[in-house]
Amino acid sequence: MKATYMFGAGDVRVIDVPDHTIQSSTDALVRIVRACVCGSDLHPYHSMGVDPAGTSMGHEFIGVVEAVGSDVRTVRVGDFVIAPFAVSCGTCVFCAQGLQTSCVRGGFWNDAALGTAGGQAEAVRVPLADGTLVTAPVCEDDDDALLDSLLTLSDVYGTGWHAAVRGGVGEGSVVTVIGDGAVGLLAVLSARQLGAEQIVLMGRHQVRTDLGREFGATDVVAERGEEGIARVRELTGGLGSAIVLEAVGHRPAYDQAVGVVRAGGVISRVGVPQYEDAPVGFGSLFGPNVTLTGGPAPVRAYIERLLPAVLEGTVQPGRVFDRTVGLDQTPLGYAAMDAREALKVAVRP
Amino acid sequence: MKATYMFGAGDVRVIDVPDHTIQSSTDALVRIVRACVCGSDLHPYHSMGVDPAGTSMGHEFIGVVEAVGSDVRTVRVGDFVIAPFAVSCGTCVFCAQGLQTSCVRGGFWNDAALGTAGGQAEAVRVPLADGTLVTAPVCEDDDDALLDSLLTLSDVYGTGWHAAVRGGVGEGSVVTVIGDGAVGLLAVLSARQLGAEQIVLMGRHQVRTDLGREFGATDVVAERGEEGIARVRELTGGLGSAIVLEAVGHRPAYDQAVGVVRAGGVISRVGVPQYEDAPVGFGSLFGPNVTLTGGPAPVRAYIERLLPAVLEGTVQPGRVFDRTVGLDQTPLGYAAMDAREALKVAVRP
Repeated sequence: MKATYMFGAGDVRVIDVPDHTIQSSTDALVRIVRACVCGSDLHPYHSMGVDPAGTSMGHEFIGVVEAVGSDVRTVRVGDFVIAPFAVSCGTCVFCAQGLQTSCVRGGFWNDAALGTAGGQAEAVRVPLADGTLVTAPVCEDDDDALLDSLLTLSDVYGTGWHAAVRGGVGEGSVVTVIGDGAVGLLAVLSARQLGAEQIVLMGRHQVRTDLGREFGATDVVAERGEEGIARVRELTGGLGSAIVLEAVGHRPAYDQAVGVVRAGGVISRVGVPQYEDAPVGFGSLFGPNVTLTGGPAPVRAYIERLLPAVLEGTVQPGRVFDRTVGLDQTPLGYAAMDAREALKVAVRP
Repeated sequence: MKATYMFGAGDVRVIDVPDHTIQSSTDALVRIVRACVCGSDLHPYHSMGVDPAGTSMGHEFIGVVEAVGSDVRTVRVGDFVIAPFAVSCGTCVFCAQGLQTSCVRGGFWNDAALGTAGGQAEAVRVPLADGTLVTAPVCEDDDDALLDSLLTLSDVYGTGWHAAVRGGVGEGSVVTVIGDGAVGLLAVLSARQLGAEQIVLMGRHQVRTDLGREFGATDVVAERGEEGIARVRELTGGLGSAIVLEAVGHRPAYDQAVGVVRAGGVISRVGVPQYEDAPVGFGSLFGPNVTLTGGPAPVRAYIERLLPAVLEGTVQPGRVFDRTVGLDQTPLGYAAMDAREALKVAVRP
């Protein structure tokens, strides 16, 4: 079968690899209907050293179950399934509390410990299938808009939702979202769904911020740094934003979050931090009693909650996809996202 | 009148200063019945540069109102009052939400902007008296144990309580408290009051940790660093402590908190950070979805909640005082706390 591998910075290729097989009684094999390229895939695309063995890529996909191990109970051959970006057992103490990203038996796609491969491929072996996969009452011939929206439940929609939930968004909330990538835009959509009254979107790409407005942003701030902070404070009554959702992951975005958050407020991060140390002392978080929260989204915990509105079409998170390529063209998808010509690229094997 | 000033590291003196007067219609003058030395007073005691003008010291006191401005409504001459360590108006948006430490009109003791002096003195001028002071139905001749407990409501008890509240302590919680100073011990007491089931106290001074056990600690861990982290993890089922209350403020205590907290858990800090940057990235807070919260305690918000049990004597937070000195001996109080011969020193003018 064909699968996407990265061999170094900027070097993505689709190659032939052996077909996956069931290795454990709790495995499923899933033929992939749609996968996609994530903003976080661009980090190794910029920085990965040359590796002739390559790395299997992709952690978001939907597909059809083609085989199951003898102990799999909740998914059957022929089921249409959504795969979260984390593998989870569904029964441990962390899964029970909805923190599947910390599952004691689980892990991720392309995870050496689990022996998993990536989802930008024709098929994937899914360990712990009962705990990981969620079935959806659709078929692969349904329209692209619906499939695209289902695909966002693998990661970006659930991640935007996690930001909003951890940030404590509720009826009447004042929220600032930092970042106009797919996660930032879906954090806007999530905040709107949870009842936010004012949603300030910080981003400078008008096509994206226009979609952000359609998702529910009430204000857009294109300025960055001190100017952007001043503008958000002005828009939020001078005292700052009670809730800030940080969907970028670079240090300037963290500093922006600290700059716009109101005393007593919350910064909820879902952009994977590209830094380890940051200010947390009296002059940043401590003095004004600001809470810092967030992390990798346990999207598995949110899929059942978010699925009905997607199936009804009352929300259309799949609108973040603005390009679709065949599996052979996946490298072009990386290049388009890297050049910011595409917001998010779907891959159709 | 006499007041305590610091003129440089290790140089604390009680000097004669002019009596305070009412300067604004919202002021009160309070004759001090008890003040005390705070662990945070030891930071300048170690590091302050020589300053011939000196700095007025003390931010915790109880006393009797001797005069009020014409607009003061809620306290009267002769009232016994508790003064929080922050001055607050009681009416702004932050005071209304119980975050008096961020009051838009307020500030602190010995605050140049407010023109306030410190409380290790015979008397203090209290700005914004209605928003700041809380009356208590006692008199200065009541027994020392009661007065000591009331004095903790100025800071250390409310600060321990803030740690527990911000940490989300409730019935059945598993809590680790880092630090066996007065705030750490009162964080233990607070966690117990809020229903915590297991309270691990990290501290190595047995007299203090014994008091911690009396306040409700179920386990004491004297080890520090990796050894201490391993011991706490062992005591908390291998996964770590869902709630960590950090009552020290030095970087090793932060690292300890990150080490013992469970995935999905909360680190609530009330020790004033003696650092600005710290790890918050994938390997510390983000990966395991750990929340970092806390800050200067808005003790004004908690006094009414905590006062009844203090008056009834069902809690005795004043037990953290293990020495009382006269105002003239305040410098000896600093020295005793600095040498760790005393846990917390009360000052009786």
